[in-house]
Amino acid sequence: MEKAGISLSVDAVVFGYQPEQGLSILLIRRKYEPFKGGWALPGGFVLEGESLEEAVSRELKEETGVQLNYLEQLYTFGDPKRDPRRHIVSVAYFGLVRPDHFEIKADTDAEDSQWFQLDELPKLAFDHLKILEYARERLRAKISYEPIGFELLEPKFLFGDLENLYMSILGRSIDRRNFRKKMLAFGILDELDQKVKNGPGRPASLFQFNQEKYFQHQRDGFHFEI
Amino acid sequence: MEKAGISLSVDAVVFGYQPEQGLSILLIRRKYEPFKGGWALPGGFVLEGESLEEAVSRELKEETGVQLNYLEQLYTFGDPKRDPRRHIVSVAYFGLVRPDHFEIKADTDAEDSQWFQLDELPKLAFDHLKILEYARERLRAKISYEPIGFELLEPKFLFGDLENLYMSILGRSIDRRNFRKKMLAFGILDELDQKVKNGPGRPASLFQFNQEKYFQHQRDGFHFEI
Repeated sequence: MEKAGISLSVDAVVFGYQPEQGLSILLIRRKYEPFKGGWALPGGFVLEGESLEEAVSRELKEETGVQLNYLEQLYTFGDPKRDPRRHIVSVAYFGLVRPDHFEIKADTDAEDSQWFQLDELPKLAFDHLKILEYARERLRAKISYEPIGFELLEPKFLFGDLENLYMSILGRSIDRRNFRKKMLAFGILDELDQKVKNGPGRPASLFQFNQEKYFQHQRDGFHFEI
Repeated sequence: MEKAGISLSVDAVVFGYQPEQGLSILLIRRKYEPFKGGWALPGGFVLEGESLEEAVSRELKEETGVQLNYLEQLYTFGDPKRDPRRHIVSVAYFGLVRPDHFEIKADTDAEDSQWFQLDELPKLAFDHLKILEYARERLRAKISYEPIGFELLEPKFLFGDLENLYMSILGRSIDRRNFRKKMLAFGILDELDQKVKNGPGRPASLFQFNQEKYFQHQRDGFHFEI
């Protein structure tokens, strides 16, 4: 093994959300040592002359086939012992997508790639569980100052679909009445005239996002305690 | 110049706040090329086997004499052209301290080190102005979800001192009546029986932080729109 000082890598924490399945995470099975055959976050070494964003998009595409234009920088993990090979510092990125909008296929450096439900995680290589938990925490915090759901829910959805999305990310139940009242007060939702029969009880209204208000709040932020 | 792949550095954005002077920033004058003689953020290369936090504390101490136990990770800047020498990725950290609590002295790698008022900044080397602006923005955002001032104001202070601190960080004036009302509602301030004569008008009350409530909000966060 060459001794090359400190190396720099990137890792991608790509969360998936599908109304029926809840929150999942995109993992790859490692083709090489260390942790050969083990599951890990997609990622790899930054190439000379390449930006961090280019590196993480490239690695994600190479290892999973998933092409994402935008991932947000999460945190840089620099414990010198986090990799058994040598001192490798990793800049982690994260994002939240609809798994059914992408086709995944393992490619270079990865034996396999797959979505895992968060409550059915395999053992993860390196400090990737720590990185994943850090991303999960950031995602939880993020929904209190930025609206989510636009790309994750169907164009027309039931209020319960939005509740389920928030509960999946928070990992806990919410006070539904309070949530509804606060969420509607932001004006990011338009209640449609259409109603659908959804189980017992009265038919429920369909909603859609008010694009203008939604993206305004995404730019300016809001304060939303759930 | 050796060709050593990507190098990793750390930079420290240390803001100072003093009631009389407002917001300042700790800079060093570079001893070596590139930008020899120019002003820059304290920082330098991470050593093999060293954590990022160790590196930034060491560089800060070496270059300015300032010893800080805790700096918060800000962001990692990875534009491959940000350093004219070669591809150097920098992990930036930031903090906010009382300048008069530290003695500064330039040491290795720095010709000089000095606090600069934010409105009297010299030209900065590399992308350090961008890093500084990013830190300024984060600091602004941070005061809306975490109390500040405990280590920055005197143990007993006038409400106007707290207003001035917030205005310095925000870089704008605030609605004083609204600010006072909201700030008092958090319960982090105790109004003392002591009053002091401060200019014309009635004597003003002295305040101190309620330690328990202050640190509770620092742990749990709050939502404070100013």
